[in-house]
Amino acid sequence: MAQGTNSISLPVRIGICAPSTPLPREAADRVLALAALTHPQAELIFDPQCFLEEGHFAGSDRQRTDSFVALANDPSLDAIWFARGGYGAARIAEAAVEQLDGSAKSKIYLGYSDAGNLLGALYRAGFDRVAHGPMASDIGRTSGDRAVRRALDWIVHEKSDALEPGLERGRKYAAFNVMTLTMMTGTRLIPDLRDHILIIEEISEYLYGLDRAMFHLCSNLAEHGLNGIRLGNVSDIPENDRPFGEDPEAITRRWCQSNDIAYLGRSEIGHDVENRIVPFGLLKP
Amino acid sequence: MAQGTNSISLPVRIGICAPSTPLPREAADRVLALAALTHPQAELIFDPQCFLEEGHFAGSDRQRTDSFVALANDPSLDAIWFARGGYGAARIAEAAVEQLDGSAKSKIYLGYSDAGNLLGALYRAGFDRVAHGPMASDIGRTSGDRAVRRALDWIVHEKSDALEPGLERGRKYAAFNVMTLTMMTGTRLIPDLRDHILIIEEISEYLYGLDRAMFHLCSNLAEHGLNGIRLGNVSDIPENDRPFGEDPEAITRRWCQSNDIAYLGRSEIGHDVENRIVPFGLLKP
Repeated sequence: MAQGTNSISLPVRIGICAPSTPLPREAADRVLALAALTHPQAELIFDPQCFLEEGHFAGSDRQRTDSFVALANDPSLDAIWFARGGYGAARIAEAAVEQLDGSAKSKIYLGYSDAGNLLGALYRAGFDRVAHGPMASDIGRTSGDRAVRRALDWIVHEKSDALEPGLERGRKYAAFNVMTLTMMTGTRLIPDLRDHILIIEEISEYLYGLDRAMFHLCSNLAEHGLNGIRLGNVSDIPENDRPFGEDPEAITRRWCQSNDIAYLGRSEIGHDVENRIVPFGLLKP
Repeated sequence: MAQGTNSISLPVRIGICAPSTPLPREAADRVLALAALTHPQAELIFDPQCFLEEGHFAGSDRQRTDSFVALANDPSLDAIWFARGGYGAARIAEAAVEQLDGSAKSKIYLGYSDAGNLLGALYRAGFDRVAHGPMASDIGRTSGDRAVRRALDWIVHEKSDALEPGLERGRKYAAFNVMTLTMMTGTRLIPDLRDHILIIEEISEYLYGLDRAMFHLCSNLAEHGLNGIRLGNVSDIPENDRPFGEDPEAITRRWCQSNDIAYLGRSEIGHDVENRIVPFGLLKP
């Protein structure tokens, strides 16, 4: 964050945009009310683009791109917080990141799920303050205020107790939703993950779909020099017409093994209020 | 097929295995009864492996591999017909194809959907009688006998009216389910599609999921020298909480355009009884 050691607190100005699907206005209102209580030094700026609707998306590709680029290039903002996932960031990430300038580089970027497309593209482009963690839309979950407070704790204070508890200083990390990352392989969005511990999570996928995605992901990453894979929460698994016969950890372990990737155990990320912060890149000692 | 121009009809022996999910026995019985009437010169051999169940799959990875390899390497068989899709062939295709010998090379292979993993791996390995078309499980559809008869027309007679009607002699083709092919990119299963017209179809995917897969697929194939893409049927699209805003053809056209791939129009393949035959590779003049 911009002024952590100042005794006179300058506002931390956080621009919020929706690169995927729209945020309900009442969710934004609840986040503003909460932040006013818990993080009075934060100034949250919800771009009106967050509330646009065009088919599936929070406005057209152009509108979502322009909103993100304008906020990221605004030198008066300290951080970009993604409002919500869904689907849509893959359609704009490459073109959006190409339009960023120097003042975009110093900002914190925070989000997860479909926003992983932007996290990946930013990290690939050399942005070093990119992090996987809760979004404004998490206010809608039961006890969602915990997730939102954690996000603001990271953006405003870079509080270390917001971090995923298994992270080790001196190692490199990246975190993604499985299906999001699966669809990024081989495209201009996926960053170089050599020497990284990759942390993954999933929601609302059949176990056969998770297995298929892990086949793809581990096959594609096998030669990329990963340090290993850790598995976050896999939630809301739809019931299929018959049981798959393996749980998510067994699936992950098996695909890691058959691709000579180290499986490093579980992790506290996921589509839930426990979703902890994973900064991309080297966790500085 | 083995003896199309013989006036004394030798039996065409067709080995049937299930590389993905199990086939109901009564489906096999119905296919046998139909074939006895319509294709008396065909001898259909359902491997008992078709009826095994292990979790999601028609037996273990080993059992499914062994069944396919044994049938494919059996010199007394003329063709391998895949029983059913679902999911599972990606787990065995690479290891299975590595075990094939010379007598496997002269056979016809027919299937679609998840069996595309084997079609792709076989074609990649130089097998030149691989085709996308109906499977035994299609007997379960309304008027499913039409699909089964078409499959047998191809395997037994290589009847040209079983072919997808838009195919042109002298051009190269391949056909896949979108999600199956999406998960094959970057793996050792996807064949070289240079100069090919790629025909794709999809079932039971949300339109945002189709859009995401087309982002991945077109991004990955953009530099691979495709001749173009044709779109088959996109069926059973689940209803989302809001309309996507574009139909499958508009989605396909847009991703083709942004990746400089020619969009060549519609095609008669899909998860339905109209699913026509697409032989892989050069359609001989």
